[in-house]
Amino acid sequence: MSATEQHRRPVGQVKEVTSLANPLVKDIKALALKKFRDEQHAFMAEGLKLVIDALDLGWSIKTLVFAKSAHGNAAVEKIAARTVAAGALVLEVSEKVLSAITRRDNPQMVVGVFTQKYLPLKDIRPAGDDVWVALDRVRDPGNLGTVMRTIDAVGAKGLILVGDTTDPFSLETVRATMGSVFAVPIARATAEQFLAWRKSFPGLVAGTHLKGAVDYRSVDYGGRPVLLLMGNEQQGLPDELAAACDKLLRIPQAGRADSLNLAVATAVMLYEVRRTALKLPTEAGQ
Amino acid sequence: MSATEQHRRPVGQVKEVTSLANPLVKDIKALALKKFRDEQHAFMAEGLKLVIDALDLGWSIKTLVFAKSAHGNAAVEKIAARTVAAGALVLEVSEKVLSAITRRDNPQMVVGVFTQKYLPLKDIRPAGDDVWVALDRVRDPGNLGTVMRTIDAVGAKGLILVGDTTDPFSLETVRATMGSVFAVPIARATAEQFLAWRKSFPGLVAGTHLKGAVDYRSVDYGGRPVLLLMGNEQQGLPDELAAACDKLLRIPQAGRADSLNLAVATAVMLYEVRRTALKLPTEAGQ
Repeated sequence: MSATEQHRRPVGQVKEVTSLANPLVKDIKALALKKFRDEQHAFMAEGLKLVIDALDLGWSIKTLVFAKSAHGNAAVEKIAARTVAAGALVLEVSEKVLSAITRRDNPQMVVGVFTQKYLPLKDIRPAGDDVWVALDRVRDPGNLGTVMRTIDAVGAKGLILVGDTTDPFSLETVRATMGSVFAVPIARATAEQFLAWRKSFPGLVAGTHLKGAVDYRSVDYGGRPVLLLMGNEQQGLPDELAAACDKLLRIPQAGRADSLNLAVATAVMLYEVRRTALKLPTEAGQ
Repeated sequence: MSATEQHRRPVGQVKEVTSLANPLVKDIKALALKKFRDEQHAFMAEGLKLVIDALDLGWSIKTLVFAKSAHGNAAVEKIAARTVAAGALVLEVSEKVLSAITRRDNPQMVVGVFTQKYLPLKDIRPAGDDVWVALDRVRDPGNLGTVMRTIDAVGAKGLILVGDTTDPFSLETVRATMGSVFAVPIARATAEQFLAWRKSFPGLVAGTHLKGAVDYRSVDYGGRPVLLLMGNEQQGLPDELAAACDKLLRIPQAGRADSLNLAVATAVMLYEVRRTALKLPTEAGQ
């Protein structure tokens, strides 16, 4: 960036706010509701480390909120300076305001409001041994967040949300991701869009299904892209999605059928798909 | 049971209740708080199927609550008759009362109040290839419930809660177990009691630890009892518990360390420990 450009960048502001009636605070509080998240294309993430990670990963911050008690904290001041330099707003607020925004009794010191980001389906170009996960109509925010966290942990490439799902940018989902919301690209598609896109998937499309006849451990996943397709908490995969799979896999269970939580089943599958790819670091590498 | 004994059994009652101020309803509502669950040694489970399963597994019912709208439903009437025969109370309530009891807008038709049950630590006698799970100071009710559900799914024998943990009989935990609360024996112990008991464990005690040097897939778990010890959501295993393990295992991760949810990590471990034991049913067996 040239000196001139730098000069022209919008300059952020720092404001002190203690009133819950302040319109800036009201706008952020409104992000608890999907309607307002959608309108503002924004979402909230709590915690200093998360906000730093988000900025480092290139996410666009709209507002940084921090507690008065964090005033003078070097790390917080640094992130506030980065926020101002990016032309965004910094709010120094009372703990009461932070509690109201996060709906928590003991809120984190720092909250960031970021612009939502979705990856267009057409921009997914699987290659090598890339692993993608598709979740059909996932309903529970905790499950969705935990799946994103696991995708990050196993080094899979990203997530496709199929059909009407819970919002990946809700406070509860973002919390459950433990920061992985900033590391895991999310695409979304209707079932029809997904089925059309799936036709060009250059590898194995594997669904997990209670009627699956193939033991999930009997497949060689290596050397090609894998798309793992999981049904939702109530019904599993509907027929049209099951029919689009190259293989329908099953995870053996000792007791009742259908007794695994969705996030657990997805993790067990992902650790199998990535079994040969994942290794402990060698002593020297640690 | 002889005819005379049968005659002497307390006879249950059926009452119609529509008021939230009714003392019976107040007692059940109070079960939302741990203090009152402990006082009453009781907990709530929602759903007709769960209540039937619980009775079939020998759990002692204190009160059956069902919605007026379920009046005449054959399955509900049958379970009400079983409850009365067991000398317990049956309440037919308005949907408003059911919503208040379960703190849900669309409550299940049936709620059972059961007596809490813990397995004494000394009654655990591991043999063969029994698998037990111990959770150190687990904090999140959803994680605890999901771990219980997974223990059930893989056919492990039960759970030991070590130290100060979230309550396995909270409404949120019971919900997350999806009925496994009735199938999975729970013991509880202080760290000291656990360490003393562990000395006589006749098999492998394996802890999962971020500093573990052993790949969790490199161990032969078969042919002996296994105790899987998991640290809590914040800190992992403390030193004294880590020192009590025969092996400290690690699950490889691609990105940041410590990025698996506790219930996910426990499930990935359990599916590895039970890898040779779990098989899909053969076609003929289905």
